[in-house]
Amino acid sequence: MKKFVIIVAGGAGSRMGTDIPKQFLELCGKPVLMHTIQRFYDYDPDCELFLVLPAAQKSFWSDLCLKHGFLLPHQVVSGGETRFHSVRNGLGHIQGDGIVFIHDGVRPLVSRETLDRCFQAAQETGNAIPVLPVTESLRKLDGRRSFSVDRSLYFSVQTPQTFRSKQILDAFSQPFDPLFTDDASVAEKAGHPITMVEGNPENIKITTPTDLDVAGVFMKKHVD
Amino acid sequence: MKKFVIIVAGGAGSRMGTDIPKQFLELCGKPVLMHTIQRFYDYDPDCELFLVLPAAQKSFWSDLCLKHGFLLPHQVVSGGETRFHSVRNGLGHIQGDGIVFIHDGVRPLVSRETLDRCFQAAQETGNAIPVLPVTESLRKLDGRRSFSVDRSLYFSVQTPQTFRSKQILDAFSQPFDPLFTDDASVAEKAGHPITMVEGNPENIKITTPTDLDVAGVFMKKHVD
Repeated sequence: MKKFVIIVAGGAGSRMGTDIPKQFLELCGKPVLMHTIQRFYDYDPDCELFLVLPAAQKSFWSDLCLKHGFLLPHQVVSGGETRFHSVRNGLGHIQGDGIVFIHDGVRPLVSRETLDRCFQAAQETGNAIPVLPVTESLRKLDGRRSFSVDRSLYFSVQTPQTFRSKQILDAFSQPFDPLFTDDASVAEKAGHPITMVEGNPENIKITTPTDLDVAGVFMKKHVD
Repeated sequence: MKKFVIIVAGGAGSRMGTDIPKQFLELCGKPVLMHTIQRFYDYDPDCELFLVLPAAQKSFWSDLCLKHGFLLPHQVVSGGETRFHSVRNGLGHIQGDGIVFIHDGVRPLVSRETLDRCFQAAQETGNAIPVLPVTESLRKLDGRRSFSVDRSLYFSVQTPQTFRSKQILDAFSQPFDPLFTDDASVAEKAGHPITMVEGNPENIKITTPTDLDVAGVFMKKHVD
């Protein structure tokens, strides 16, 4: 079945304490985003890939591609006001039936196994999201107090959130709701139960300088 | 106010895929546990420190101390059947009023600032635990389905869980309950609301070989 990939790279980089948005920072000599795109082509060279970027960053990105001789094919799409709007812009370019991977641009360490688990489960059930068990104790706020919760009931959610194209296109025709926290919550509101598959621990979201250091360690170990 | 430290190092190391329990693995040339103990002496050279170890590991530990010339004072206490029992054994050695830090042996990267936030808040309110906001989307199982939850209401809990000595000694006189997930949940069951303070992101719990690599990166950056 045809594979579509939407990579969402909307970050402005404020949490990194840098002027360069985090998806463009270098990891082992190459911008984070190039590693991320590479992962999908390593998994399936025939995938069709859309990169959603803030309009103001498009020319910076094409300069980076020139500088690094980055030739993997991808169509650049302008981002929107929120993640929901950015993903919707990406989905607007998808034609025909297939499986759609929606992935954070700042997760360059997703493994081939995670991608394949998502693909297989989404083919069977309509969708799949990679998750990991929560490993630390967890507390929940309730007004001014907090209480411990049973962490074995909770899962930490990664991307790519993965869907049959029809399911996710329908779901994103709903009006925007500020309660949409990720793509799965959009599909869920449209009535689809969500399938969880195992992610990989290295598949971290790079949002701080510390994360970038950690990603460097993982990258050198040749994850996948 | 007097500071007591109970370091709990009960791990058998099965998740590391190694025969050596994880608290003894080397990090930058020294067993993890020595780094952990060092953090507390760097914070306060006058603290009184108890190390809770499985009885079977005591001689291995004293050999390690000899080998590494490790001279920081600490009293070794035998562990119990569960974490609750291990901590209770440690608490049995505490005499007089003070603040008790209960800390995982495999968290060698707690910062001086985290320790001080715990100490100050526990002096004021009776207890304090270091927490961090949850940064990934979170889902909760409900029977066979799962649903997204508002992650802004959740916090990930680290150690040292920190208490006025009287409060925690009283709390641990309760009978064991399998629902005790950490020391705060024991105090909570005894009726004490828990104070949350900010932890530090490097204060990870080393439970996998990957965690050990990450800790190495943090260690080289001289956290705190």
